Amino acid sequence: MRAAVLYGAGDVRIENVPDARLIEPTDALVTVSRACICGSDLWPYKLTEPGETGRRMGHEAIGVVAAVGADVHTLKVGAVVVMPFAFSDGTCVFCHEGLHTSCVHGGFFGTVDVPGAQAEALRVPQADGTLVVLPVGTDDTLMPSLLTLSDVMGTGHHAARAARVGQGKNVAVLGDGAVGLCGVIAARRLGAERIIILGRRPDRIALAKSFGATDVISERGEEAVARVRKLTGGFGVHCVLECVGTDQAMLTAIGIARAGGAVGRVGVPHYEAIPASQPAFYSNLTVSGGPAPVRAYIEELLPDVLEGRIEPGRVFDRVIGLDEVPEGYRAMNEREAIKVMVKP
Amino acid sequence: MRAAVLYGAGDVRIENVPDARLIEPTDALVTVSRACICGSDLWPYKLTEPGETGRRMGHEAIGVVAAVGADVHTLKVGAVVVMPFAFSDGTCVFCHEGLHTSCVHGGFFGTVDVPGAQAEALRVPQADGTLVVLPVGTDDTLMPSLLTLSDVMGTGHHAARAARVGQGKNVAVLGDGAVGLCGVIAARRLGAERIIILGRRPDRIALAKSFGATDVISERGEEAVARVRKLTGGFGVHCVLECVGTDQAMLTAIGIARAGGAVGRVGVPHYEAIPASQPAFYSNLTVSGGPAPVRAYIEELLPDVLEGRIEPGRVFDRVIGLDEVPEGYRAMNEREAIKVMVKP
Repeated sequence: MRAAVLYGAGDVRIENVPDARLIEPTDALVTVSRACICGSDLWPYKLTEPGETGRRMGHEAIGVVAAVGADVHTLKVGAVVVMPFAFSDGTCVFCHEGLHTSCVHGGFFGTVDVPGAQAEALRVPQADGTLVVLPVGTDDTLMPSLLTLSDVMGTGHHAARAARVGQGKNVAVLGDGAVGLCGVIAARRLGAERIIILGRRPDRIALAKSFGATDVISERGEEAVARVRKLTGGFGVHCVLECVGTDQAMLTAIGIARAGGAVGRVGVPHYEAIPASQPAFYSNLTVSGGPAPVRAYIEELLPDVLEGRIEPGRVFDRVIGLDEVPEGYRAMNEREAIKVMVKP
Repeated sequence: MRAAVLYGAGDVRIENVPDARLIEPTDALVTVSRACICGSDLWPYKLTEPGETGRRMGHEAIGVVAAVGADVHTLKVGAVVVMPFAFSDGTCVFCHEGLHTSCVHGGFFGTVDVPGAQAEALRVPQADGTLVVLPVGTDDTLMPSLLTLSDVMGTGHHAARAARVGQGKNVAVLGDGAVGLCGVIAARRLGAERIIILGRRPDRIALAKSFGATDVISERGEEAVARVRKLTGGFGVHCVLECVGTDQAMLTAIGIARAGGAVGRVGVPHYEAIPASQPAFYSNLTVSGGPAPVRAYIEELLPDVLEGRIEPGRVFDRVIGLDEVPEGYRAMNEREAIKVMVKP
């Protein structure tokens, strides 16, 4: 079968690889109907040292169950399923607490150990716990929005939850990528009164506004902090969704948070440290977040997608075939595309 | 009147200073019945550069109202009052949210601008919002425990709240000073199942146990992390109360927190940064805390003190007069005393 393999910075190739197959009795084999390129894929795309051992990329997909292991009990061949970016057994103490990304038998797709979803098919470990059956066919018009439940919509929701978004809160969203845009959807859905997006690309800003952003700030760094403070009576915002993962973004996040406020961070941190003292400590800020337990959120978000109350699928602005995946990486990396859908 | 003045590291003097007096119409003048030396006083005691302008120390007191300004409406001369370590107007948006340490008209006692409570008397700004009248006389046997509502009991409670202590949680307390010991009381009061104290002084450990600590770990650093993990099935604790404020303590706090857990930090941070990446991000840890809004907590904690359900006053193991304050600093700094009460 064909699959996307990363060999080094800027070097993604589509190759023929051994067919995906069942290994453990708890596995399912899934034929991929839709996959994506993720903003987090761009970190290895930018930073990987050249090497001979490729990494099979991709951690978001909707597909059809093609086979199940002997210990898989809830899935049937032919079921249309959505796959969270992490697999999880659904039964451990962390899964019961809704933190599936810390599952004791869990792990991540698209790593060196577990081949990814930018492929014609993939093996899904812990299939019963991981996969969620969708009540639609693979050509349903809702496919794009359903596909975001694999990662970006759940991740935006996690940022909003970690930032304690609720009724009447003032919110700022750092990052106008797909996760930030889904963060806007999540903040509005959770009742935020004011939603300030920090970004500057016209197409992304337009989408953010249609998702519910009330204010746009195109400045960065200290100027952005000053603008947010001016917009909020000098106080800053209750909730900051940090959807970037850089030093500068975390500094800005801390700088625009209101005393007693919270920063929900979901951008994979490419920074070493969170500033500890002034203002974080003296303003009693909370910093929370991490890899989103999207599996926990699918049940909550799915009805809103199925009934059209949220349309996170609008973050996809390009659809490509598997052979075009290298070009898709380039386009996302150069910010030509917000998010790329792959139809293998 | 006499007051304690800090001139440099190790150099606290009792001096004759101008009598405290009303300045603003919202002030009260309070004759100090009891004051304390605080663990946080030891930072300037250790680190202040020698200088000619002294700093009037002390931010915890119970006293008697001696005079009130024209705009003070809730306090009468003769009332016995407890003073939180920060003053606050009680009416601003932050006070209404219970975050009195961010009051827009607030500030801290014992700073260069606002003379402290290790004195015969002191001026209390924003008296209506700041002071809480106590229903007892100044020689009541409950004085020590009531005095802890100025700071250490409220601060331990804040650490527990920031660490999200609740029914059945596993808790670790870093620091066996008065705040850490009050953190044990707070954790037990909020329903913690297991309370691990990290400390090594026999007197403090005995007190921690009598307050509800279930386990004691005397190791530090990586050994402490390993011990806590072993005690908790490898997972770590749900809630960490960081009551120290050093780099090492924050590292340990992050290291012993369970995935999805929270660190409540109240130790004044003498570290620059909170480790951002592994494990803090990947384990979805929350870091929260700051200066405790003890004013907000007095109503909640006062009944438990008055009815004897908690006895935080047991953290005082030495009572001195004002002239002995320099010796009190020395004893606390050398960890001979847990917490020193001052009777001016």
